[in-house]
Amino acid sequence: MQPEGVLESCLYAEDLGAAEAFYTEVLGLERFASEPGRHVFFRCGSGMVLLFQPEVTGARRAQVGESLLPLHGASGSGHLAFRVSVEALPGWRSRLEAAGVEIESEITWPHGGRSLYFRDPAGNSLELATPDLWGLS
Amino acid sequence: MQPEGVLESCLYAEDLGAAEAFYTEVLGLERFASEPGRHVFFRCGSGMVLLFQPEVTGARRAQVGESLLPLHGASGSGHLAFRVSVEALPGWRSRLEAAGVEIESEITWPHGGRSLYFRDPAGNSLELATPDLWGLS
Repeated sequence: MQPEGVLESCLYAEDLGAAEAFYTEVLGLERFASEPGRHVFFRCGSGMVLLFQPEVTGARRAQVGESLLPLHGASGSGHLAFRVSVEALPGWRSRLEAAGVEIESEITWPHGGRSLYFRDPAGNSLELATPDLWGLS
Repeated sequence: MQPEGVLESCLYAEDLGAAEAFYTEVLGLERFASEPGRHVFFRCGSGMVLLFQPEVTGARRAQVGESLLPLHGASGSGHLAFRVSVEALPGWRSRLEAAGVEIESEITWPHGGRSLYFRDPAGNSLELATPDLWGLS
């Protein structure tokens, strides 16, 4: 018995407005829901990318029915990699450059796969990577 | 143009040995690779779950060929949700209880979907959730 996959991947951002602009305009994600000052959620492929304001979700338990959601919230730079095809990489490089987003690193992995690294406005380390990096197709 | 999905979801743990035992034995994930003291990586469905030691990855840039990987590392409680079927939930509840893992919260969402919440040994908030929570199948 094991989980079927990851359903929600999370990052934290103090400025959710800047995060929302970046994830929608630069990364092209579709905003699914938001609660100003607390979170903004995006759909991404078969899962969700959730951005939370850590001072809020780390301090106040939201209530759903009669249950309380657990506290969580991290500070520092998180990391998340998005799946892209190798054919899409030149277009992504152009889009990041056009948006003034610095490409912090670019890797061709010795065992296959390529990665582009950059930062979101909160300083999280984001990656666009081809799945062969992990032997996935 | 948008990413095809999430390829790598990350959490941080100071004690990677405890994390590895939990993610393999309790969650049933397959260890893909590890570097003692720096990281342990798991395959999960069509993506990867990466656990890093934040004091290491936040301070030392690893080198790949002639390129350096970006620094990242967070402290506090991160969050990640795994995708499970509604049929599998009773089995998961039993497994968590048998492993002595406290179920911190259990939610039936008003718009559909169910979630079980618990903690990994590092204090990250983990969730087993059914995809209808997000209108996904």
